[in-house]
Amino acid sequence: MQTSPFLGELIGTLVLLILGDGVVANVLLRHTKGEGSGWIVITTGWAFAVTMGIFVAKAFGSIDAHLNPAVTVAFAVATGDFTNVLSYVTAQLIGAFLGAILVWLHYLPHWSTTPGPGTKLGVFATAPAIRTIPGNFISEAIGTFVLILGVAGISSRNIGTLAVGFAPYLVGILVWSIGLSLGGTTGYAINPARDLGPRLAHAMLPIPGKGSSDWGYAWLPVVAPIVGGILGGLFIRWYAL
Amino acid sequence: MQTSPFLGELIGTLVLLILGDGVVANVLLRHTKGEGSGWIVITTGWAFAVTMGIFVAKAFGSIDAHLNPAVTVAFAVATGDFTNVLSYVTAQLIGAFLGAILVWLHYLPHWSTTPGPGTKLGVFATAPAIRTIPGNFISEAIGTFVLILGVAGISSRNIGTLAVGFAPYLVGILVWSIGLSLGGTTGYAINPARDLGPRLAHAMLPIPGKGSSDWGYAWLPVVAPIVGGILGGLFIRWYAL
Amino acid sequence: MQTSPFLGELIGTLVLLILGDGVVANVLLRHTKGEGSGWIVITTGWAFAVTMGIFVAKAFGSIDAHLNPAVTVAFAVATGDFTNVLSYVTAQLIGAFLGAILVWLHYLPHWSTTPGPGTKLGVFATAPAIRTIPGNFISEAIGTFVLILGVAGISSRNIGTLAVGFAPYLVGILVWSIGLSLGGTTGYAINPARDLGPRLAHAMLPIPGKGSSDWGYAWLPVVAPIVGGILGGLFIRWYAL
Amino acid sequence: MQTSPFLGELIGTLVLLILGDGVVANVLLRHTKGEGSGWIVITTGWAFAVTMGIFVAKAFGSIDAHLNPAVTVAFAVATGDFTNVLSYVTAQLIGAFLGAILVWLHYLPHWSTTPGPGTKLGVFATAPAIRTIPGNFISEAIGTFVLILGVAGISSRNIGTLAVGFAPYLVGILVWSIGLSLGGTTGYAINPARDLGPRLAHAMLPIPGKGSSDWGYAWLPVVAPIVGGILGGLFIRWYAL
Repeated sequence: MQTSPFLGELIGTLVLLILGDGVVANVLLRHTKGEGSGWIVITTGWAFAVTMGIFVAKAFGSIDAHLNPAVTVAFAVATGDFTNVLSYVTAQLIGAFLGAILVWLHYLPHWSTTPGPGTKLGVFATAPAIRTIPGNFISEAIGTFVLILGVAGISSRNIGTLAVGFAPYLVGILVWSIGLSLGGTTGYAINPARDLGPRLAHAMLPIPGKGSSDWGYAWLPVVAPIVGGILGGLFIRWYAL
Repeated sequence: MQTSPFLGELIGTLVLLILGDGVVANVLLRHTKGEGSGWIVITTGWAFAVTMGIFVAKAFGSIDAHLNPAVTVAFAVATGDFTNVLSYVTAQLIGAFLGAILVWLHYLPHWSTTPGPGTKLGVFATAPAIRTIPGNFISEAIGTFVLILGVAGISSRNIGTLAVGFAPYLVGILVWSIGLSLGGTTGYAINPARDLGPRLAHAMLPIPGKGSSDWGYAWLPVVAPIVGGILGGLFIRWYAL
Repeated sequence: MQTSPFLGELIGTLVLLILGDGVVANVLLRHTKGEGSGWIVITTGWAFAVTMGIFVAKAFGSIDAHLNPAVTVAFAVATGDFTNVLSYVTAQLIGAFLGAILVWLHYLPHWSTTPGPGTKLGVFATAPAIRTIPGNFISEAIGTFVLILGVAGISSRNIGTLAVGFAPYLVGILVWSIGLSLGGTTGYAINPARDLGPRLAHAMLPIPGKGSSDWGYAWLPVVAPIVGGILGGLFIRWYAL
Repeated sequence: MQTSPFLGELIGTLVLLILGDGVVANVLLRHTKGEGSGWIVITTGWAFAVTMGIFVAKAFGSIDAHLNPAVTVAFAVATGDFTNVLSYVTAQLIGAFLGAILVWLHYLPHWSTTPGPGTKLGVFATAPAIRTIPGNFISEAIGTFVLILGVAGISSRNIGTLAVGFAPYLVGILVWSIGLSLGGTTGYAINPARDLGPRLAHAMLPIPGKGSSDWGYAWLPVVAPIVGGILGGLFIRWYAL
């Protein structure tokens, strides 16, 4: 079978989500080995979900391994080349949706032993610690802007060509850092596909005792990261980073 | 004396198990320095047990440093070359068995101060958080499949040749990620030797107050990782990763 | 627009502070996702805040990426070249001030839900665990001296030229180490800009229920790190590290 | 002034101990920022204390950067060249002694606020979780043997020449792994200088409310690591690793 950038973005984002939403399931669901193991576990899990998603994306043919529409938009804004935006974003959304389904399957025995619809939704999609539209919007936009700045820094020509395989590791470290430091408010979606794809999966899957998929909030972790990404892309363009 | 691939797989898996089952002993047994230190300690310990096992395996003559029958089978399926499967798997089982005996020896004073036969078995072999054959089987198969995809990603020709010594580190990070994210259900055996070898050691060793070695479950962390590994190997073959 | 060493130091220090003070906010403020997640979260967050600050600083034109007046002074003492000290320190202070404002903005909903003026100040500036001028001064001087020795070690000509991108990672690891090991007394400012810039932001920002900015202590995390930095710089000079 | 292997071993071991005993002080002493933050903090702190000790040792002229008499003896046994053993071990002991004094100084305000002589000694020297000479001896010997195997693996000619600066990082990861997995019994001295030097400092320093320096146990973390190191050195020699 044929690898391709589309397939790479899709399977890479699938791996990102099975490992990313997987760590949230491990910490939030009942009777797991990692129940209640806290923020260090969640952020470390997401960090290396990113690193491994990038490696797998490249293996399956992705050149860029964005795994994130906000990153795709940022670099489209930076370079002025919007050719791949639609296909990349489609692949990312499908991958995130499928990855979340695998998390549901992986943690199958734990859905019925866990009370609380909010906890179950929390495995799939982000929810703000304190709900306030302007505050949450600012948080997601800042988080994504720092993500773009960080990626720009790691791949800056002032640094030179990194040792092979070191960039995916460093992007994981960047996401670790953002999670630890900026994830406290909205749970750092900073990636529209990461939030919307699994939210769709939550809405469709037969999860015992599930509640609302909180569609009233769903636009925010889509729009705010795009805004942060555009700002980041403009910085890359303005300063020719 | 002579190094060889057989010896390398054996001693590498021994190191994997002394460090891997060692961290479980430290967290689960009573009166240890790390008692109750939780999932972050267990997963970090297993991660670098893998990294160090690979380095030692290579030093003692292993070319591949699989340390895991599921990985050996996956790459046999991927390449169509089954020549080394039997010798590698034999070495891995012996190494895992001996490594577990060293963990027993290392934590010698702590077996009699720890109550509960389940806790003692937990140092050696995995047990599911919620026992349900189909669910546990799916978990172990998915976990192993992600392991193979990750290894394929790290060693993909699209990435290029990694900086020397970086691959064993990244495989450790991969196992860290799998443990954090997918280990919550069955304790991520994802390696038949890692589970069966120490379970045999548990059955044979004179551990005070030990109970059953739970042979009813023992087939699952052998068969399911092999299934996940075969699926992963087929993907590598189909997509020529 | 033009990148420059000044802009690089400024934006790099801004990133250092948004991620560094950000992780403190996440752990200290109420109702955050990381509330009470402890010292491992704080030190990991600061570690990779440093790594990412250095990458971004270089992308925006910094040659040295000091992000810290004590480091700038140390290398001025070591080389005898004080040309850039004033401009670097100015950029670092402005960056730290702006980064702290962004942390305030990012955690906007959490200031009014958090009681205690001391906790709020703790997000911005360091406070000693036990207040005693000589003890606190010695701690900050030793911490900064170890920082300079570590940076000298990482960049020593006896090591050779590191793999590209590895140095910023290792400096993050160094700061992780200092935080874990020497941060227990005064909270490891070890950087005058990191403490003074955010303290100024605390004094100016409209934070609900904020108290004193503790100006009586503010001189210490400025002067003691400079003393430690000068000592470190002298060692580099004496031993031609 | 002149750098030299002697000075390098001395200052490197000093840095190892200020960071290593420093993290124990942070976790064990009262009213510190890291009080009670547990095994993950202690092991991470010691890991990067090793990495940074090696970098500093090399900067100050050490070729080998052993920082540990058991490592020095192991490689003397492996190579048959005992020329440097006495000078290296002397430097390591002096460095460890001085590093411990700096930890005492750094945490100066915390000694009088911490009750319990055992806790205070624990900052300086190791004590077994369960005191039993044969068990503790086996633990320290196994831990050191794994250390030597790991170092042999990292520096094995089968791996090739690591990326510059990666080896000191990996040795830190190795010590992280040993601490997490094998440190639960005796607190992983695995280094005679790390235990004896600070124990001497404890005996001499004016620490309020200090008790015995536990000289009855002091021989064990000296002799057992040497035995483990000799065994490891013999393996390196026998297998020409």
